[in-house]
Amino acid sequence: MKESTAPLPSSVAFDSATGVIPDATAHYQKRLSDLRGLFLDSDALESRIRAEGDPLIYENYGFNQNQAEGDIFFGTTIIYPGKVGSEYHLTRGHYHRKRNFAETYQAVSGNGLVLFELQDGTTATAELAPGKVTYVPPYWAHRSVNTSDEPLIFLWTCPVDAGHDYEGLGGRGMRQVVLERNGVPKVEDRPGYRA
Amino acid sequence: MKESTAPLPSSVAFDSATGVIPDATAHYQKRLSDLRGLFLDSDALESRIRAEGDPLIYENYGFNQNQAEGDIFFGTTIIYPGKVGSEYHLTRGHYHRKRNFAETYQAVSGNGLVLFELQDGTTATAELAPGKVTYVPPYWAHRSVNTSDEPLIFLWTCPVDAGHDYEGLGGRGMRQVVLERNGVPKVEDRPGYRA
Repeated sequence: MKESTAPLPSSVAFDSATGVIPDATAHYQKRLSDLRGLFLDSDALESRIRAEGDPLIYENYGFNQNQAEGDIFFGTTIIYPGKVGSEYHLTRGHYHRKRNFAETYQAVSGNGLVLFELQDGTTATAELAPGKVTYVPPYWAHRSVNTSDEPLIFLWTCPVDAGHDYEGLGGRGMRQVVLERNGVPKVEDRPGYRA
Repeated sequence: MKESTAPLPSSVAFDSATGVIPDATAHYQKRLSDLRGLFLDSDALESRIRAEGDPLIYENYGFNQNQAEGDIFFGTTIIYPGKVGSEYHLTRGHYHRKRNFAETYQAVSGNGLVLFELQDGTTATAELAPGKVTYVPPYWAHRSVNTSDEPLIFLWTCPVDAGHDYEGLGGRGMRQVVLERNGVPKVEDRPGYRA
């Protein structure tokens, strides 16, 4: 019977200082060389890869026992602080493969922004900050950006069957970028962007 | 087009000291009189209702803009500390109407337990504590219990189409109970329980 093979209840620890989930079932890291093409300033990117030995930009721990419809997948993302040129560290960004699936984020430490974009080019942003749940609605592509001076650590929760579509954004990431301007983060359209 | 009427990205504040979500779209409270039949000691329950003016046992704030398949529903539950006789304060407990739907809890303050039960009577428990995500798998009924001396506040995240089935537990709640024994919480089978 299906029930007897269903995943078991559990209480899964995460380290709120580092974002590590010791019992994670999945883990990946993205170094700066994995993110070529996503930042505006590719000279600054290459020079940081040479100078810093290809630094770690973000990593992701996931916990999931099961891929069945209706189940939930959760984990942590840790985006280390820093900039490439004047652009803050970011995740690749994606749509859900099933576009009508939502997600939630909950920042544990650090501060940042989520950039959102619909297929028609409509944009939005929302804050990632402790004490807030950031709601990722159906249909919106989403990319997270660390605008703080410390690691941005957030928990994410998502139906397992949502899936990821990294191709829908056409390789470049999103319409908007988050740049440091006079010492503060500013959301701007990507130079040369055409709707 | 569906996309244009989809809910918008947002960052939804919750008060980690009280569990209040100021922008909640739903809120309910359960007083002791709403929980008649769920605690073992009904004399202790009636005497607390008389002595304390029907105290608030738990409340729930939810945030949801949309009931479409694939969307997510989240909120907070606050279980105030206390006991009815030697049984710790608890929520009603439920199955999901769509039994194959999962949920996650994340304790913000306080400590407690989740009691789990399959339709065949199999039981399990998992901890609710800050720094842990409590995973509620498909098929398991779940009830939360505050075993601490302070409000137990947790965030919950669930697909909107999971639904609630409060009837599947037959009105009495669950097979197991959490009682104070020699000053510490102990999980026991309900007296007279028959599989």
